[in-house]
Amino acid sequence: MTSPSPRPRGKMVNGFDPEASGDLPPRDRAMIERRARLLGPAYRLFYETPVQVSRGRGVHLYDADGNEYLDAYNNVVSVGHANPRVAAAVAAQMGTLCTHTRYLQDGILDYAEDLLSTFGGRIGETGHAMFTCTGSEANDLAVRMARHCTGKRGIIVTAEAYHGTTALTASFSPSLGVSSPLGPWVRQVPAPDSYRLPPAEAGRRMAAAVQAAIDDLTRHGDGVAAFIADSLFSSDGIFAHPTDVLAPVAEVVRRAGGLYIADEVQAGFTRSGERFWGFQRHGVDPDIVTMGKPMGNGYPVAGLAVVPEVVERFGREIRYFNTFGGNSVAMAAARETLAVIREEKLMENGAKVGAFIRDGLTGLMKRHPGIGQVRGTGLYIGVEMVKDPASKEPDGAAAAALVNALRRRRVLISATGYFGNVLKIRPPLVFGQADAERLLTEMEAALDEAKG
Amino acid sequence: MTSPSPRPRGKMVNGFDPEASGDLPPRDRAMIERRARLLGPAYRLFYETPVQVSRGRGVHLYDADGNEYLDAYNNVVSVGHANPRVAAAVAAQMGTLCTHTRYLQDGILDYAEDLLSTFGGRIGETGHAMFTCTGSEANDLAVRMARHCTGKRGIIVTAEAYHGTTALTASFSPSLGVSSPLGPWVRQVPAPDSYRLPPAEAGRRMAAAVQAAIDDLTRHGDGVAAFIADSLFSSDGIFAHPTDVLAPVAEVVRRAGGLYIADEVQAGFTRSGERFWGFQRHGVDPDIVTMGKPMGNGYPVAGLAVVPEVVERFGREIRYFNTFGGNSVAMAAARETLAVIREEKLMENGAKVGAFIRDGLTGLMKRHPGIGQVRGTGLYIGVEMVKDPASKEPDGAAAAALVNALRRRRVLISATGYFGNVLKIRPPLVFGQADAERLLTEMEAALDEAKG
Repeated sequence: MTSPSPRPRGKMVNGFDPEASGDLPPRDRAMIERRARLLGPAYRLFYETPVQVSRGRGVHLYDADGNEYLDAYNNVVSVGHANPRVAAAVAAQMGTLCTHTRYLQDGILDYAEDLLSTFGGRIGETGHAMFTCTGSEANDLAVRMARHCTGKRGIIVTAEAYHGTTALTASFSPSLGVSSPLGPWVRQVPAPDSYRLPPAEAGRRMAAAVQAAIDDLTRHGDGVAAFIADSLFSSDGIFAHPTDVLAPVAEVVRRAGGLYIADEVQAGFTRSGERFWGFQRHGVDPDIVTMGKPMGNGYPVAGLAVVPEVVERFGREIRYFNTFGGNSVAMAAARETLAVIREEKLMENGAKVGAFIRDGLTGLMKRHPGIGQVRGTGLYIGVEMVKDPASKEPDGAAAAALVNALRRRRVLISATGYFGNVLKIRPPLVFGQADAERLLTEMEAALDEAKG
Repeated sequence: MTSPSPRPRGKMVNGFDPEASGDLPPRDRAMIERRARLLGPAYRLFYETPVQVSRGRGVHLYDADGNEYLDAYNNVVSVGHANPRVAAAVAAQMGTLCTHTRYLQDGILDYAEDLLSTFGGRIGETGHAMFTCTGSEANDLAVRMARHCTGKRGIIVTAEAYHGTTALTASFSPSLGVSSPLGPWVRQVPAPDSYRLPPAEAGRRMAAAVQAAIDDLTRHGDGVAAFIADSLFSSDGIFAHPTDVLAPVAEVVRRAGGLYIADEVQAGFTRSGERFWGFQRHGVDPDIVTMGKPMGNGYPVAGLAVVPEVVERFGREIRYFNTFGGNSVAMAAARETLAVIREEKLMENGAKVGAFIRDGLTGLMKRHPGIGQVRGTGLYIGVEMVKDPASKEPDGAAAAALVNALRRRRVLISATGYFGNVLKIRPPLVFGQADAERLLTEMEAALDEAKG
């Protein structure tokens, strides 16, 4: 790889720069100033020109003037913005009961049973479900349990991983940037960059890097509690293939007495278009699976599934209670979201529409050599922008320009990866053929515009 | 204090013992077995005989057979179970838009402005609001920011504090029991036990204990990042008075360069019946205020308010994003809950009904010397059960027997404190005069029954 100019590490990909707000319409500028005053400096907006939203429906968002945006970014609302079935289920349960898990209720048990049936492997056989409100809480709890179970401290992640925003999960989320310190018991391994490395070697290389990390953790007295990864490597740049990478890694981790945690916050709930869970594409049998974002189509519900032996001592000695986790309404939202995913065959839709989008984007490569690679699976698509397809030098500026050009055309996507040079296309799972065509049309126009 | 028999530290107060499930009705036993299979060993139920719930309304819960329970325990549903106004606000917003904070939206700004107006002090002047999904996340973020701001690590809490269930917050929550290790940078100070110590000395003693903890943390190289407390000392045993305790503590902490974090998850949103926030009763001006449970009447919404200088560098260097935190529906739920609290004058109701309950309970002391003290404020009431009012020896067994006797009479309360001997009465804020009378009638009957 040639010398790239990485994005400033304290800044986020596709973040709005308040210093550059001079050109905004007065209404937006006033709103941004009010926001800075009320919410403070830790909050960030997307895009050079932030998007104001007033309502949503399906794959569309609308601003106060009624302008329509095509949402090709938000995976949380996987069954569509303001999905009427989920809204009705939440409304009905809110009008009936919303309470916690220290009383007996059927809803949580029905959902847990249904959810556990999706896993297969050891979790499918005898696993338990536990509920939190956010993916961060799920990963935090997973690592707490992994440490309690193994008696070890070390955590191994990919180089640009993101696993959450609690103190613990932030400490093994290198993508938060250099100002956010990693724990001394954290080791990073390169993600399987299928664009730059021979795909046939990816599994062997990653397993070797994980073994080296384990050895180093052991040498430092921490040992390995867990390896945790998102099988789509979303924040590393979206590497959905090859799918024979994580099984050898799991083997190495298990041999050292560590646990394999599959972080399915991004890849789960059929996002890949191929399997219900991302780890299933790699043929691994995880000890813990964490989940979140799309689970309740926007209602704050998340959780994990775990093999009994990992939670046995933790459950006896520590117990777990999360006031809102697994509450009656959360379970109703999750149940209805899962029903819609199944009944509307959204996995099949994602496979078909995702392939159509990737084909269309691939077709643009000849006229647009800045597109280094089109990759992904289902409706999780990455487009790597480079300065030159021969050198493969990352082009974060080109990606940022495209993201903002599309935003001006009212199509919402973002970017990811260490250099921020990989377009991230990750729409609601109800994204249809016509939506894909609109996306491709606008993408082509944006690329042409950039060419000048 | 004479030699008490503390409850087993791995067990919770008022937890159901699955070993003792033999006497339960077959339907409940089957449900409990199903629950153990699906949710695993970390989940606990309340009561010797768990309560099954199917619906709720106002201060009442109902089981599948239509039996009515008087809820004198659940503070989350502060404006009442299945409050129709909050349910309608959530339903309307779910049908319109539910998205995150990286787009411009009015709802979050309107709510933040309204919320910040309740604080007074420095936060009221120029503070910022930040939103999470749970009180645990709020406390986790508060301590992350406190450490980033001060460059110190030490955290000082009360002896039986509870501040959350993330890895970080659990590590400064001694009430989770001895199996859950405290961080090496945590120091505990005794709560102001107004039953056993001269109230006039409480502030001086606590400030001295905090100073000693600061000195010890400094000696160990950690220094003090923050003191954090719930001003009602709920998990320590509910000590609502005296109210001149925390100002001298804040003074000592600030002099050492540490921050004062007011954990208002329990005491906030008018629970005390006297002020909107619990810390206001002590006249302190906190650096960070965290909040949760009743904020959205059961919808998972929580957050914090912070003075600008504490979040300034954190905001610039780290940023903060919580996918579901501050989402459109969370803000609608919180806004409507706050409106109901104000419009139905629930603070005034809590003051009046709470005083009536405390008077009634105090009236029972003569015939029932096991009641050592009745205390609290508003609708947060503690009843300390002792073996003998002279020795003040804690009687956890008597408290447990009363909690379960009331449960048989379909009145729900719980217990708290290190010895589990303090009855915890903490109903929805819509608890009325007739509800209070029913509670007192059943309490008297349960006490008489225990006397035999």
